[in-house]
Amino acid sequence: MPQSRIVIVGGGFGGLAAAKALRNTPARVILIDRTNHHLFQPLLYQVATAALTPAQIGTPIRGILRNQKNASVFMGEVTGVDTEQKRAFVTNADRSNVPVPYDDLILATGATHSYFGHNEFEKFAPGMKSLADAVATRNKVLQAFELAEAEEDTKRRRELLTFVMVGAGPTGVELASALAVLTRTALMEDFRRIDPASARIVLIDMAPRVLTPFSEGLSQAAKRHLEKLGVEVRLGHSVEQIDDDGVVVAGERIVSKTVIWTAGVAPSPAGKWLHVETDRAGRVRVEGDLTVPGHPEIFVIGDTASFEENGKPLPGVAQVAMQQGRHAAKVIHRRITGGSQPGPFSYFDKGNMAVVGKGFAVLESHKVAVSGFGAWLAWAFVHLQFLATSSLRLSVFLQWVWTYFTGQRGSRLIVNHHGSQPAKAAEETSTKTAVA
Amino acid sequence: MPQSRIVIVGGGFGGLAAAKALRNTPARVILIDRTNHHLFQPLLYQVATAALTPAQIGTPIRGILRNQKNASVFMGEVTGVDTEQKRAFVTNADRSNVPVPYDDLILATGATHSYFGHNEFEKFAPGMKSLADAVATRNKVLQAFELAEAEEDTKRRRELLTFVMVGAGPTGVELASALAVLTRTALMEDFRRIDPASARIVLIDMAPRVLTPFSEGLSQAAKRHLEKLGVEVRLGHSVEQIDDDGVVVAGERIVSKTVIWTAGVAPSPAGKWLHVETDRAGRVRVEGDLTVPGHPEIFVIGDTASFEENGKPLPGVAQVAMQQGRHAAKVIHRRITGGSQPGPFSYFDKGNMAVVGKGFAVLESHKVAVSGFGAWLAWAFVHLQFLATSSLRLSVFLQWVWTYFTGQRGSRLIVNHHGSQPAKAAEETSTKTAVA
Repeated sequence: MPQSRIVIVGGGFGGLAAAKALRNTPARVILIDRTNHHLFQPLLYQVATAALTPAQIGTPIRGILRNQKNASVFMGEVTGVDTEQKRAFVTNADRSNVPVPYDDLILATGATHSYFGHNEFEKFAPGMKSLADAVATRNKVLQAFELAEAEEDTKRRRELLTFVMVGAGPTGVELASALAVLTRTALMEDFRRIDPASARIVLIDMAPRVLTPFSEGLSQAAKRHLEKLGVEVRLGHSVEQIDDDGVVVAGERIVSKTVIWTAGVAPSPAGKWLHVETDRAGRVRVEGDLTVPGHPEIFVIGDTASFEENGKPLPGVAQVAMQQGRHAAKVIHRRITGGSQPGPFSYFDKGNMAVVGKGFAVLESHKVAVSGFGAWLAWAFVHLQFLATSSLRLSVFLQWVWTYFTGQRGSRLIVNHHGSQPAKAAEETSTKTAVA
Repeated sequence: MPQSRIVIVGGGFGGLAAAKALRNTPARVILIDRTNHHLFQPLLYQVATAALTPAQIGTPIRGILRNQKNASVFMGEVTGVDTEQKRAFVTNADRSNVPVPYDDLILATGATHSYFGHNEFEKFAPGMKSLADAVATRNKVLQAFELAEAEEDTKRRRELLTFVMVGAGPTGVELASALAVLTRTALMEDFRRIDPASARIVLIDMAPRVLTPFSEGLSQAAKRHLEKLGVEVRLGHSVEQIDDDGVVVAGERIVSKTVIWTAGVAPSPAGKWLHVETDRAGRVRVEGDLTVPGHPEIFVIGDTASFEENGKPLPGVAQVAMQQGRHAAKVIHRRITGGSQPGPFSYFDKGNMAVVGKGFAVLESHKVAVSGFGAWLAWAFVHLQFLATSSLRLSVFLQWVWTYFTGQRGSRLIVNHHGSQPAKAAEETSTKTAVA
């Protein structure tokens, strides 16, 4: 009898946890992702602020699953699912819609940023979900300082040194505070004409407080620390407009050349692929065993699944995805090996953390709610622990210690495609400017 | 009296050496580069083969000159020089042709790759001069393995696993051999359907031997080692055609999806900016003190200068550029401080090295010509020493030791702009393929 085929779509926290949990299952495990790396998203803001390099938070999925002989990895984008014929369709740089048959399917396709119906904002306020996004943000931020240094006009210089983050959830808070620290440490002595510490950093949210997943007290603590770092926090108003000249909030225009979208997320289109019921946000409603109603062979987990516990949907965090991934794997494993089925999925909430700048975090776990340096140490410890490989844990740890004590950040690179030109292009430039 | 303005164009080996050597000169030193980083070009091939990360060989120029209070740095591209009014014209993302006045000008604008009149080759066989180029090459190489793994057709799989390097100078030899090592170490256990070690790696040059700057004996040693690594070396024929299907050499087509240009270099257009005499290659002929005839205030150094010693032009290597940078700085310093002028520039040739794979290099210095492991250790030692900062020296050293003993390479990332899409784009994809 041929081995059962378990197709996992997505190499994020959920998909990877599922793949690893299936290591002893007598089946073929096929993991498909549109990138070649597992991304440690919680530290993405550190790449955007040049504290870490892309290679420190992106780990080749093939490397992670190298020794798991029942697993194979394919790079490609799933574009649809034929639930009748049990096939997922995969597109890569070479071929379109190649059918990949499955016996069991785990959709762990995550979320992307959402502009709440204002997709025209994207051009001016890119989001931050992938390594490419983070590198683009880093380029944009560092470039703004370069242009400000070269600018004679003080008003324009001020505009170039104004940075706006739209959305004060964990990503917005972490990015805004990391940017504030960057301007006051690594960049401090780099310039001769501008004072990077004078940069204006604005954090906007329509909610009445920052970090809404946390308790009121911690939100207040986080806000106070943001303000201590010099971040301007504007709450209770949504952004009315984003364009080439910055944003408009509460009728006031904030002129800025660097606006970053750290607000909404939208689930992947898994619900549309399956033609099944979704919640208002578009997430697929799943059963207690994380399967789709009517399709016991299709599991949806993580940010793209809607799973309620005590009448509240579970949050879109790594812990939920990982636990769901392991649960789905257990259900499939027991089906194949004939064991008794586990009870319905239940989330064990270890707590929630967000970092604000350097040496300060907020931490909430069950009845504990703390903020400050201790919470930051706990944050650092937990995040190191969850990195994909031991060499990364060492590398990130050393980098953090180095940056903590020296303030230096080695990866302050602007890498774009103007760095080199073939001879002819260079000559054309020279001809053109011979006139100037 | 206002301070004298020394404008240096280019933050490569020559320009940076000049800037640093001017640290005690009572003048304003203005360094302009089109990127924000000094690139350690000799290790560029290691970024292209995922052995090092971009941040390990690119160092922010501002960081290097942070403590040199008479130096300021501007990111922008010089597009021309007005030698009458003594102004260089600089363009950045915000503004075009801003005049930057100088009293002394040092042009250290380096070289770019040249397609010897076949610029149509560039689209199919990109060169490797900048970090962006190296990252693009890395993406391309890793992507080829991903596509091969997903490919059912054995002939096409073979084509995807054929890599051609055009040009067997140091860059071509180092890249081809590093690629051979990559396929036999880090990638070895990553795939399930393809054997990366079966990749065909072809190195082509019209010269009768590899590494022509070296002696005949070392060329032979390098070639033997390349062949031992499985690299196919095709000498004595130039490439007749490069297109989407690979290359044609000596009438034979080699079908390949990954062709990399490691052949010619062309100097920057400094000669055209200055309207002065150049050699056949386009390099500016300079006087003994490295100034341009008739312009004692304009120095041209490094790859863009033509300087003959014993009837032979100096090679386009880092050592020449650095020594010339320091010499130009000395001439300017003594002019300003009133010291006696140094004698004409004279190159002290410390020797030449190239690495072939892992643990093997060729080294030539005066009468010494050695190849093998000892030469490789010397190579590693010298290259570590020339990295821009001590933290980089430590980081690259640890990385090399790690990679040497484990064969692992952490930066096997494919980072392109398909990694993330906003919600709407994702929905469009799903709609399109609902039909499929």
